[in-house]
Amino acid sequence: MDMEKVNSMDFGEFVDVFGNIIERCPLIAAAVWSQRPFSDVEDLEKHFFAFIDALPQSGQEGILRCHPDLAGRELQQSTLTAESQREQAGAGLTSLSAAEQLQLAELNALYRARFGFPFVLAARLSNRAAVPRELARRLRCPPAEELRTALGEVKKIGRLRLADLFGADPARL
Amino acid sequence: MDMEKVNSMDFGEFVDVFGNIIERCPLIAAAVWSQRPFSDVEDLEKHFFAFIDALPQSGQEGILRCHPDLAGRELQQSTLTAESQREQAGAGLTSLSAAEQLQLAELNALYRARFGFPFVLAARLSNRAAVPRELARRLRCPPAEELRTALGEVKKIGRLRLADLFGADPARL
Repeated sequence: MDMEKVNSMDFGEFVDVFGNIIERCPLIAAAVWSQRPFSDVEDLEKHFFAFIDALPQSGQEGILRCHPDLAGRELQQSTLTAESQREQAGAGLTSLSAAEQLQLAELNALYRARFGFPFVLAARLSNRAAVPRELARRLRCPPAEELRTALGEVKKIGRLRLADLFGADPARL
Repeated sequence: MDMEKVNSMDFGEFVDVFGNIIERCPLIAAAVWSQRPFSDVEDLEKHFFAFIDALPQSGQEGILRCHPDLAGRELQQSTLTAESQREQAGAGLTSLSAAEQLQLAELNALYRARFGFPFVLAARLSNRAAVPRELARRLRCPPAEELRTALGEVKKIGRLRLADLFGADPARL
């Protein structure tokens, strides 16, 4: 995919392709289409991130609440989006032992109860051993700091998904 | 459903129930959950509408772009949401003649090209004869006025969907 092709898309095509850059928030891709033409991937990404940053806190929390738990109910029920399925599988979260699953389920529940949104992490940059460690660590963070951290993870996930679509090296983005 | 039950929902349950009050925008329900407890249906509705009104214009256009065409491709491919399917069927849009389908397809295309979002109408308050008439009328409106009109239709649709969930009379909402 190149940017000339992207800039020629009508909004239906654009949402079909970019609707899940931010997990289960096609509204954001649909809004970003208003900002075309885009000069390059960095420019496109910038508009996604600016939309997130401009939302009121409830909207930013809303984005997080559209994300699935890691190794949660939706993975077990095979109702994850294709992107989430790949990311969680890549981190080894589809082959946890029963004890590991139980530990993560308990930590996820504590996290959701404490912050009012699920634990969001760019799973492709982590692994099955690191996930519960990082979850336990972030569980102790102050809520305002944790909201910022979680939105940072949403952006990392979005950057990696964009890199996939453009065949780009995400380290260069 | 009563408001006590709604106020006791965790965000996962809340998004499961209210995620499509605004068509294909679960982000909005997920954001509204931050405003609980709600005193009554009017209060709940008020928070949905306030979130829409507070979005930048690109976000409001984004909401519209998450809506399907009336009698469009998604109806033919059976990929509408359950709510849209019921609403379009209720207005008689599932039993159009070939000539009526063609007329609507042409008007929808003109509308999308002119405004950059699809024609949105509370189909349950209309019918197969009125839809193309209203589409042709709104096609001639100035863009800023048409954005306001279309968002008003989004709110009418949301009000009717809320009334369904609460078994309320929408005329009283």
